[in-house]
Amino acid sequence: MRTEKLLSATERTNHRRLREQGSLDPEDLHSILRAGFICHLGVVVRGSVMVVPTVYGATATTLYIHGSVASRSLVEAPDASACVTVTHVDGLVLARSVFEHGVNYRSAMIYGVPRLVEETEEKLEGLRILTEQSAPGQWEHARQPNRKELAATSLLALSLDEASVKLRFGPPDDGDSPDAEAGIWAGVLPLTTAWGAPQNAPELDPALTAPRHIAERNGKPLGSRG
Amino acid sequence: MRTEKLLSATERTNHRRLREQGSLDPEDLHSILRAGFICHLGVVVRGSVMVVPTVYGATATTLYIHGSVASRSLVEAPDASACVTVTHVDGLVLARSVFEHGVNYRSAMIYGVPRLVEETEEKLEGLRILTEQSAPGQWEHARQPNRKELAATSLLALSLDEASVKLRFGPPDDGDSPDAEAGIWAGVLPLTTAWGAPQNAPELDPALTAPRHIAERNGKPLGSRG
Repeated sequence: MRTEKLLSATERTNHRRLREQGSLDPEDLHSILRAGFICHLGVVVRGSVMVVPTVYGATATTLYIHGSVASRSLVEAPDASACVTVTHVDGLVLARSVFEHGVNYRSAMIYGVPRLVEETEEKLEGLRILTEQSAPGQWEHARQPNRKELAATSLLALSLDEASVKLRFGPPDDGDSPDAEAGIWAGVLPLTTAWGAPQNAPELDPALTAPRHIAERNGKPLGSRG
Repeated sequence: MRTEKLLSATERTNHRRLREQGSLDPEDLHSILRAGFICHLGVVVRGSVMVVPTVYGATATTLYIHGSVASRSLVEAPDASACVTVTHVDGLVLARSVFEHGVNYRSAMIYGVPRLVEETEEKLEGLRILTEQSAPGQWEHARQPNRKELAATSLLALSLDEASVKLRFGPPDDGDSPDAEAGIWAGVLPLTTAWGAPQNAPELDPALTAPRHIAERNGKPLGSRG
């Protein structure tokens, strides 16, 4: 089973400087992907690197991404590789010395050659996964894409086979250094991302209220799946 | 004055699909940069695109980034261009149709050839800006880098001359479409990132409490500058 396999350690995913923060546990990869819905997609377009924020949806083996820039680059260079990065920032690490300052984070980088999804059934399923990633329950609630909308949407699939996971958590590392004697406060300032109260669209029939799968997320942190 | 100049519109920054969401107002660029401290840096290393999350600090003209991956690529290809993207996600746009779903966000992409900062005075100033970006007041509070630490740190400078700003805000766009008659709820689910209560490092002298510039951020949204 894919989820029991260790992540591949290739030249690109071999953590040179942050070895202690690398993870080869596929569960870390999947948990980082489950916790978000926005990635940063890096592609080369006409010789220039572009890093584009876009939405994604993940299965156990595949990342689906929405992307006009990427599909543009894909049409121009169909075998071009990409890197997709998903990052969650959990807090600032405030050490005694500036040098030891850092960030608590969880990050997954996925490398590969994206494939343009063209077959109707996979495209619909990919869009369902992508929609459910950010708003579980929404695919059945909203009107699903018709043929014309499907044709106007570009969807890419990227295998999760080559991935690199890095994370840091916990307090600063200079608690046993000479700096610890200097009487400087040190610790972590946490950062949390959470959903707020749903805001009705202005023209909405006042009799309509946000459906339960949306309303119940009010106050919950990003990454909690309802 | 730089801040009164319009952002350059080059081939790369010309918004092909999302023209209505592009901004050429430098104040939008600076306000997006001020509101964050993490960017995604895209570089090509040995033929592969890499997208790496890293901390930054911004002045009116320059972005300073911390980056071992980038400096590795820079040593290998000193004229290689990079793209740095800063993104804030403000909410989910839940339309009547899946096709009209989207994200409220603010994003800045900066293109250029990063310059390795080697001169001591600029390096110290760049590190100060970078430290103050995430934790204003911390540069004076913590122990500043010594000569050895400075040598072990790689800092890059990227001009803000070529930048692309995109943003979306407000309700879904299908309020005047036939879908609006279908009785489907539509609106925005906001997403907010906020600081929490400081957590003392475990070995800390119990007499020490978090300094005011850290403690007063508890409960404040990311992007509020104290």
